[in-house]
Amino acid sequence: MVMDDAARRARKSRRRASPAAAKPERRIDYRRLHNPFSPQPAFSDDQIAEMHTTALRILEELGIKVLLPEARDIYRRAGALVDDETEMVRLGREVVESALASAPKSFRLRGAVPDRDQVMELGALSFQAGAGCPHATDRERGRRPGSLEDFLDTVKLVQGFDVLHTIGPTVEPQDVPIHLRHYAMTRGGLTLSDKPCFLYARGTPQVEDGMEMIRLMRGLDRDAFLADAWTYTIINTNSPRTLDIPMAQGLIDFAKAGQMSIVTPFCLAGAMAPITVAGAITLQHAEALAAIALAQLVRPGAPVMYGSFSSNVDMKSGSPAFGTPEHVTATLGSGQLARLIGLPWRAAAASAANVADAQASTETVMSLWACLMAGATHVVHSAGWLEGGLTFSFEKMMIDLEAVQTLAELCTPPPGTTEDIGFDAIAAVAPGGHFFAGDHTMSRYQTAFYEPLVADWSNFGTWSEAGARTADQRATDLWKQKLADYAPPAHDPARIEALDAFIARRTEQGGAAPVS
Amino acid sequence: MVMDDAARRARKSRRRASPAAAKPERRIDYRRLHNPFSPQPAFSDDQIAEMHTTALRILEELGIKVLLPEARDIYRRAGALVDDETEMVRLGREVVESALASAPKSFRLRGAVPDRDQVMELGALSFQAGAGCPHATDRERGRRPGSLEDFLDTVKLVQGFDVLHTIGPTVEPQDVPIHLRHYAMTRGGLTLSDKPCFLYARGTPQVEDGMEMIRLMRGLDRDAFLADAWTYTIINTNSPRTLDIPMAQGLIDFAKAGQMSIVTPFCLAGAMAPITVAGAITLQHAEALAAIALAQLVRPGAPVMYGSFSSNVDMKSGSPAFGTPEHVTATLGSGQLARLIGLPWRAAAASAANVADAQASTETVMSLWACLMAGATHVVHSAGWLEGGLTFSFEKMMIDLEAVQTLAELCTPPPGTTEDIGFDAIAAVAPGGHFFAGDHTMSRYQTAFYEPLVADWSNFGTWSEAGARTADQRATDLWKQKLADYAPPAHDPARIEALDAFIARRTEQGGAAPVS
Repeated sequence: MVMDDAARRARKSRRRASPAAAKPERRIDYRRLHNPFSPQPAFSDDQIAEMHTTALRILEELGIKVLLPEARDIYRRAGALVDDETEMVRLGREVVESALASAPKSFRLRGAVPDRDQVMELGALSFQAGAGCPHATDRERGRRPGSLEDFLDTVKLVQGFDVLHTIGPTVEPQDVPIHLRHYAMTRGGLTLSDKPCFLYARGTPQVEDGMEMIRLMRGLDRDAFLADAWTYTIINTNSPRTLDIPMAQGLIDFAKAGQMSIVTPFCLAGAMAPITVAGAITLQHAEALAAIALAQLVRPGAPVMYGSFSSNVDMKSGSPAFGTPEHVTATLGSGQLARLIGLPWRAAAASAANVADAQASTETVMSLWACLMAGATHVVHSAGWLEGGLTFSFEKMMIDLEAVQTLAELCTPPPGTTEDIGFDAIAAVAPGGHFFAGDHTMSRYQTAFYEPLVADWSNFGTWSEAGARTADQRATDLWKQKLADYAPPAHDPARIEALDAFIARRTEQGGAAPVS
Repeated sequence: MVMDDAARRARKSRRRASPAAAKPERRIDYRRLHNPFSPQPAFSDDQIAEMHTTALRILEELGIKVLLPEARDIYRRAGALVDDETEMVRLGREVVESALASAPKSFRLRGAVPDRDQVMELGALSFQAGAGCPHATDRERGRRPGSLEDFLDTVKLVQGFDVLHTIGPTVEPQDVPIHLRHYAMTRGGLTLSDKPCFLYARGTPQVEDGMEMIRLMRGLDRDAFLADAWTYTIINTNSPRTLDIPMAQGLIDFAKAGQMSIVTPFCLAGAMAPITVAGAITLQHAEALAAIALAQLVRPGAPVMYGSFSSNVDMKSGSPAFGTPEHVTATLGSGQLARLIGLPWRAAAASAANVADAQASTETVMSLWACLMAGATHVVHSAGWLEGGLTFSFEKMMIDLEAVQTLAELCTPPPGTTEDIGFDAIAAVAPGGHFFAGDHTMSRYQTAFYEPLVADWSNFGTWSEAGARTADQRATDLWKQKLADYAPPAHDPARIEALDAFIARRTEQGGAAPVS
């Protein structure tokens, strides 16, 4: 299958003949993706409807424990039955239904430049790298507690791949004191990237700091900030049925500021949720509805995203598992619930593997496809996640990006005109011939195909002679090269100066400790 | 996330209380699968219609080169324009349309027992292990030319997994002389397994030997054999537009005998097919239609399967690539073409990786999902294929089976009754509690979840202490254990005796050399 001399000569002479000597660059826009597939169900419509009404019944009859008094007050004012002693909130379905009516079905999450904005709505598709990892690992430096250097490196890597649409809290910089960590992380995301950035919901003081940094860096007054979603946070309920203080506070603060909350119960079937997928996503749904209601009660129209991170555990050890049939089913079922309420929603690709091996890729690609076929709007943890999120792997990030880019390629319709179908091209090649050198090929060969990041398609002999390197070994070269090639986006130096002045002042004032 | 003592105690006391001490075995039937998803398109209906008419035009105006005089005669008698000098056959669309009318939309491929039969029709789903590999590899014995021992071992492994539905030519036993090889392979498939078996189309003498062996082993007279598909072959056209002697002869022999031909052009975009996916699958379609027509002209109603194995090449080296966006698109488009003509069809999962690493699993899982979403009836090469089919990997087989079993699990609807949704189970667990020990969990925990083959979900510490073994290392243990546990199916010893007597006689007569 090796290209023969005729084909090589033909190409060479074309290149020589071409007035522009430069190779035409293949440009597929990964920045704005629309899912080309019809969302697939796992459950019948009746079953999904019953899950929804059961979730409403859970909120109405059983309630949810809300640890933040301010949040309980908000629920109470809306007519919920609140018991301050037990901290339980019982929420009538009319409150939930009114929240679902006011939650926007479509909104923009904004970056530093319009080209980085993402429309969040059913049908749109965007990806986030692995997030929330306390550890980092790569083949050269080994597994270690996450550092600021690791975090900043991953931000640079995220910036380098258009198919990753948001900056997330990839690695936790454990070498920065917790009362100052949010300055370092937010500064990193804002200065090293132009993509929509993330803030942790770790209490009002940190959230206010973060939002001020975004306003400074994006050049926004309070009204302009309020008018759009410029940042987002992830709200994890504590399953079963608990909304803790920083999460409830985050919902309130982000809603007030018109910023996006991604509401994500983490319902592991068989552990903190019922052992059935149907039960786990019903509990997930109840918790998500309660959290979405809180945001809408604070500010009707606040941008919220429904979220699913339901999977199962290993019943022998209690360890979470991903990429399993149960994870796929939970993701598909969550998509049905999200479509029932009409909101954009997030799902997760994930792996519980300990190293970037065949298990890791099997689990991640399996769950990536589940997200795609479930119609997820935003796919979280889609590159670099190992150990169920305990470690961010630089190699796995590169390996996963291959899969993510492959899915992104499917979002552009393939060439299918009469000319592309190519009767004449087929007529021009006799039986036994080949298509290497024909016009149909020559006019397309530099741009026709996706070029791999990590995959090595050379034959066994060539591959062996080159050192028989596995995908994770090649991935090391790639992330190092991408870091070496990193170029920061064009930001106004005056804004960075203002940002740094703000950080210096707040640091002098003692920073802001997380609230728990 | 570790199960607490209360949960452990609850389980222990349940086990003690249970009258039947044995653990209930989890039984999901992988033997008869139906694809639960709606097939997804890659092209518009108009584009697919244009590909079909272009394929008809290719056959009518350009023709196909047919090397076997007998086949040219059959086409000629049906009204085709045949030039014996150039060996070109130009085929009118009425011949193709009549062939498509007589080709069965549904038929059984039969095993030794009814429980192994497969219904081949759109909507059904079955899997075959990797096939046609000249080499075998595993972590203990390394990469080597395939041997009879390798072939027989892979047959035993295929037999051990219900999710693999047919016996295929996994590894080529190069240590058996070619005039006797088909005896050894067919005997292996027939005696070590009870699944539908494969015959190579390497000329009439070998095919007749193989069919006689099947009749002897299945206890069939000629009429009973003719009445059903008891075996199958794979017919690869030589793209572009050539049907060689053994392939044409195979189509004729299998059609005469009422046995299944899987017609599979191998159209690599940019090499032996147009560089566009649209063009490659149009050429594939033309070649497949010509081959299907030949089978139907020989015997209207002969069981045939439409086939796709179109992907792209690396335009730098000409190497084939799999699991690429182009491969996925070609598979989805082929599904559209198959549905247009209404025939069951095969597609392929595949990898061009040289070792069972993250690349290998990314490519295989990517293409497995493509087959699933394309609505493929029979998924070929779904476990164990490396190097684009040059090597069968024992480890990769185990790793891939995890992915194949995961997809097979999705074919059974998940539990979704009111009881499964489990309001009462949710009500029984207070906020902050867990579901480990509840009745809802206890009555399901032994059977609720898929149990992994290769995946290790233990945490990093446990995994490291146990030797930090990667998926391929664990896979070695698994295939060795499966081989050690292998139990042959219950075959009538008298039939095996008859089979061996036949082989001895034919061997004495000089066997049968392949025809080329």
